[in-house]
Amino acid sequence: MAVRLEPPDPAALHPVPGVELGIAMAGVKKANRKDVLVVRLAPGTAVAGVFTRNRFCAAPVVLAKKNIRNTVRALVVNTGNANAGTGKEGLKRAGAVCAALASLLGCKGNQVLPFSTGVIMEQLPEAKIMAGLPAAISDLKPSNWACAAEAIMTTDTVAKAASRMVELSTGVATVTGIAKGSGMIRPDMATMLGFLATDARTSKSDLQRIARKAADRSFNAITVDGDTSTNDAFVCLATGKGPVARSLKDKDLLAKAITEVAQVLAQAIVRDGEGATKFVTVTVEKGRNEAECRKVAYAIAHSPLVKTALFASDPNLGRILAAVGYAGIADLDTSKVDLYLDGVLVAKGGARYSGYREAQGAAVMKQPEITIRVRLNRGRAAATVWTCDFSYDYVKINAEYRT
Amino acid sequence: MAVRLEPPDPAALHPVPGVELGIAMAGVKKANRKDVLVVRLAPGTAVAGVFTRNRFCAAPVVLAKKNIRNTVRALVVNTGNANAGTGKEGLKRAGAVCAALASLLGCKGNQVLPFSTGVIMEQLPEAKIMAGLPAAISDLKPSNWACAAEAIMTTDTVAKAASRMVELSTGVATVTGIAKGSGMIRPDMATMLGFLATDARTSKSDLQRIARKAADRSFNAITVDGDTSTNDAFVCLATGKGPVARSLKDKDLLAKAITEVAQVLAQAIVRDGEGATKFVTVTVEKGRNEAECRKVAYAIAHSPLVKTALFASDPNLGRILAAVGYAGIADLDTSKVDLYLDGVLVAKGGARYSGYREAQGAAVMKQPEITIRVRLNRGRAAATVWTCDFSYDYVKINAEYRT
Repeated sequence: MAVRLEPPDPAALHPVPGVELGIAMAGVKKANRKDVLVVRLAPGTAVAGVFTRNRFCAAPVVLAKKNIRNTVRALVVNTGNANAGTGKEGLKRAGAVCAALASLLGCKGNQVLPFSTGVIMEQLPEAKIMAGLPAAISDLKPSNWACAAEAIMTTDTVAKAASRMVELSTGVATVTGIAKGSGMIRPDMATMLGFLATDARTSKSDLQRIARKAADRSFNAITVDGDTSTNDAFVCLATGKGPVARSLKDKDLLAKAITEVAQVLAQAIVRDGEGATKFVTVTVEKGRNEAECRKVAYAIAHSPLVKTALFASDPNLGRILAAVGYAGIADLDTSKVDLYLDGVLVAKGGARYSGYREAQGAAVMKQPEITIRVRLNRGRAAATVWTCDFSYDYVKINAEYRT
Repeated sequence: MAVRLEPPDPAALHPVPGVELGIAMAGVKKANRKDVLVVRLAPGTAVAGVFTRNRFCAAPVVLAKKNIRNTVRALVVNTGNANAGTGKEGLKRAGAVCAALASLLGCKGNQVLPFSTGVIMEQLPEAKIMAGLPAAISDLKPSNWACAAEAIMTTDTVAKAASRMVELSTGVATVTGIAKGSGMIRPDMATMLGFLATDARTSKSDLQRIARKAADRSFNAITVDGDTSTNDAFVCLATGKGPVARSLKDKDLLAKAITEVAQVLAQAIVRDGEGATKFVTVTVEKGRNEAECRKVAYAIAHSPLVKTALFASDPNLGRILAAVGYAGIADLDTSKVDLYLDGVLVAKGGARYSGYREAQGAAVMKQPEITIRVRLNRGRAAATVWTCDFSYDYVKINAEYRT
């Protein structure tokens, strides 16, 4: 029951010159399911990545972080098995998949980035994946983004993809991306993956900066349940087949387009959150710095009490203010805090606003999309995170997942 | 559906010489409900307190933190209204209740500590409470602990009280306490209150040290939903009518008894946690220091994924290891981490233990009480927290609370 989320229209996903995608059904976990994706990159493609900070890093993440330092020629993604918590054997199997793809594509194993998502603590059925590679390779084409978005789904109920054109001073560039994730993460169906490509020409270091910033404003600004997975990865590709982004202005334009696509994908993950019935934007304004604004926004977005109130469409303001209070800003003057639900001022100066009527709050809470806006009134910084509510179905999905 | 929690046997709650308790039905929120508790203290009673760190502090907490510096002669507690998020008017009303009690007992208003629990962001019906004080005063007696435990309940399903005798070198001292709380907190039925008294004679500064330490090992070591309320308070009273605790050994014995009673009360709150079907002890051992052990223990205890797996009796180990991984220990070597469910070794060196069989884990998970034990193997410190599972009923209780 995703919140206002439609499957992508394949015609709206612009191919990115220099990127070809191929899909196969390798039977990793189940038969007759798209579960292997190969992405072939034109020579000279710049590659940047942002990876999970979980100390229990899955084997493919360990390998991808290492291989990304080389000239990357291909990505290989499988669903059905996360290859996490699998020790040295897991690393060996991930390496074997990379080597097999490399020999088929005529490059080296350390020029391939592997990604896995699915059940954790089970060894990767690497032979099945390797057997599926030829089919994926013969399927390689630039127009395969919609199929690729489907191939990386696990518990997602809707495939996630987005595309933009951006006019640089040197020409029009394309930015297209896909993602998977349902629940910010669920470690056993780990996790969130995002792949985004542009034909713009940019240096690896510029791309890494852009990717990091885009991730902070998209995939790192969402939460369904507050858990951080072992497999999270967001990879940006710049093939250089299109216009060059050299001037500061062009770099900014490209960064903006990449961030926009990343945000649409990240928000799609929240909209498809496990059991989600509401899509909630939490904005914290007028803080001293962005870090404290994020702290407060996450305290609200993580609070099970706030999330169950959202599920019940109950304008239970005390829960929101209490979350602001325990967010960890030691010198917060609560008598300056204002709270809005959409456009409705509900608390002013830390207490219920005299003009506020519960019917106003109730009207906002009934909507499928809600903005919670907190003003700390102690500075000029702001931050936004996106989340969803906490429903019976969240408990059901996560309690019954393996049974 | 509390987990293995029985109402206290009044005969097992030893009176504490120097402490009298009186209860009234003041109709604060509902008629015919015990909702006001007055505690009168003998002159010379030492009083120590540990209060919420939420920046949105309720009016009674603000006042209690101030008045505790004086010679405290009485406590007054009401349920039905938390007097939180009520601004200056809330402070005025809390002060009025203290003044009214003081004039009836022949002391000063600033010698009274007020406590409130119930709905937040509504003004305290102080006139009703004041009108109930004479009845509470005429009910004052040392044997009233069981009634007092009932009088402070809000959504608790079982009253919470505990009592111990402890033999000091100077004689036998009594320690008796009561608490309320159901859910670590729910800000709108705020929250956790604990009152503990002993007849031992001890200095205020010793008592404060003991109270802080006991709180850290009890009320500050439990979590139901991770939220911190606006009204949390734990108060320790030492009347000095019994044996003196002067030697280091006697102080230690007294601290141990107080900690024990506080732990029974704190664990009772978890057992009575909203929707709880499991009582879970999370112990993290062999860490570098207690702080990092607590971090890891809380990451596990707060994870909605771990909690729903506990509800489902699903030995979903990956979720526990993933929580260890994101707990925030930057230099954690995950290849050294061991995980036990009760006595069963499930993960060794960061990966599934070869001798582990899922049937073993499933057998542990079926029990109403479970211990999750993590060994970090990088030091000698340890920490324990107690929590419960996350069930359909948690969502139900919190989604439907105000409807």
